[in-house]
Amino acid sequence: MARKIEIVEVGLRDGLQSESIVLPTEQKIALIERLIAAGVRRLEAASFVNPKKVPQMADAEAVLAGVPRRADVTYTGLVLNRRGVERAVAAGCDEIGMVIVASDTFNRRNQGVPTQESVDNWLEIAAAARRSGVRAQVTIAAAFGCPFEGEVPLTRVLDIAQRAAEGEPCEIAFADSIGVAVPAQVSELFGRMRELLPGIALRAHFHNTRNTGIANAWAALQAGAAALDASIGGIGGCPFAPAATGNIATEDLQYLLERSGVETGLSLRALLQTSEWLQESLGKTLPAMLLKSGGFPRSSL
Amino acid sequence: MARKIEIVEVGLRDGLQSESIVLPTEQKIALIERLIAAGVRRLEAASFVNPKKVPQMADAEAVLAGVPRRADVTYTGLVLNRRGVERAVAAGCDEIGMVIVASDTFNRRNQGVPTQESVDNWLEIAAAARRSGVRAQVTIAAAFGCPFEGEVPLTRVLDIAQRAAEGEPCEIAFADSIGVAVPAQVSELFGRMRELLPGIALRAHFHNTRNTGIANAWAALQAGAAALDASIGGIGGCPFAPAATGNIATEDLQYLLERSGVETGLSLRALLQTSEWLQESLGKTLPAMLLKSGGFPRSSL
Repeated sequence: MARKIEIVEVGLRDGLQSESIVLPTEQKIALIERLIAAGVRRLEAASFVNPKKVPQMADAEAVLAGVPRRADVTYTGLVLNRRGVERAVAAGCDEIGMVIVASDTFNRRNQGVPTQESVDNWLEIAAAARRSGVRAQVTIAAAFGCPFEGEVPLTRVLDIAQRAAEGEPCEIAFADSIGVAVPAQVSELFGRMRELLPGIALRAHFHNTRNTGIANAWAALQAGAAALDASIGGIGGCPFAPAATGNIATEDLQYLLERSGVETGLSLRALLQTSEWLQESLGKTLPAMLLKSGGFPRSSL
Repeated sequence: MARKIEIVEVGLRDGLQSESIVLPTEQKIALIERLIAAGVRRLEAASFVNPKKVPQMADAEAVLAGVPRRADVTYTGLVLNRRGVERAVAAGCDEIGMVIVASDTFNRRNQGVPTQESVDNWLEIAAAARRSGVRAQVTIAAAFGCPFEGEVPLTRVLDIAQRAAEGEPCEIAFADSIGVAVPAQVSELFGRMRELLPGIALRAHFHNTRNTGIANAWAALQAGAAALDASIGGIGGCPFAPAATGNIATEDLQYLLERSGVETGLSLRALLQTSEWLQESLGKTLPAMLLKSGGFPRSSL
């Protein structure tokens, strides 16, 4: 079993993007500072997309201008086109992330073009990032199911990943954007990917919409994922299931990993303090369960 | 991978026991009827303990008197002593279940005696059940951690199981009574048990207090558990973490198993209808996440 994994904090982007309250820039920066103090070393800090479409991310440049700069911390910016790469690079991102949605219908709703066009865009984006000296990774979204088309064939997901690999990403991620995946699916996809593209680092992104997110994360770790996305407090949501919860919570994932002897470099105690602070800032109960239960054993906290 | 597992519905006992609202007898019977219609074939229907201590279970006899009698449905009654066995047998239970808490402190709080005395009581209970012609199984509770003592050594749990096995239970269960277990622990315990007592059927009982319950259930299935406890709607709670959730929800577990190709005989659609009905009866939002998100793909429902 893997004894170590990297947790990528995505609360600032995937989390806050789905919250109705827009957190002020200085609070986003304070959140980043607290997360770094809790041991986080890689964060999806903002997205560089059309601010009219995603007003929660309109202050992307201002956030990046205010974060602590450390050699051991990587800030990722999400981009969907060349303009986004330029903005992310100018803002000082260490890494850019692009998303390709595995189903045509969802990709059209998200990016206005069918999946293959987003693959082509990614190849351009990857080349542009390389020229600017920043790392580039790509996420295959809706890799376990699509809210519009239903099932997404595994062969299609693998094929998109293979085409995306031509852009030489530093990592390929698979996202269960709507929270429908189950561990058996995760084990199969990650297993097949390791056979298909053995040299490439894999990341997994799960939502807990149907209570399978933590089980999926554990399955991904065992199937060879090197990194897992999570959001502090479990903030975020699912536009296709309005009452449902968001990303898997960083503190819930940390509890499981820590108690399983898997090293992440994060402190559960500091994560819980950060999460409590965020809960007050957002003025609502966050879905993370460790916030309600506390850790175990008590003496460890 | 296992392609089949039995889900034991424990909402009537472990679930309702922790709810502040006492469901009237006729509603309990209606719930049992709905669960059977949804495919449930084994239910922990009531506990035969002191009604002054557990008022929610005071109508155990009346519930059992009103349930449909079918050759393919097993009703289990929880008992803690000889008197309980007599009551459960007289009420027409097909099976009795006894609990031994793995830590002395918790066992004293639960049963007034240290663990070893409960093992001795179990051996008497098992013999009495056998004489009455009903099956007897035993649960080792707090098998993954104790709210008072903290860590419970694996060797202690295995030792208790071995002593309990002398009562020739039809099954031994391990319960994470306070929701602290992680999948690595589950895999280890069930793996060790299969080596130690290869002939005995194993069941697992998880609470989702720290968001690990579903991952633990998946790990138990893979480590050879033949049955999993779950409660409809995820009803119940944890007296040691008052804000926390209860047993893993039957519908959430069913979603994961069904989508993984593991047969249970249950219908997700019928479970969700039952859960919605129960939610109205209890007048509160239940923790099951499938209640909020619905299944996937939509066409399957």
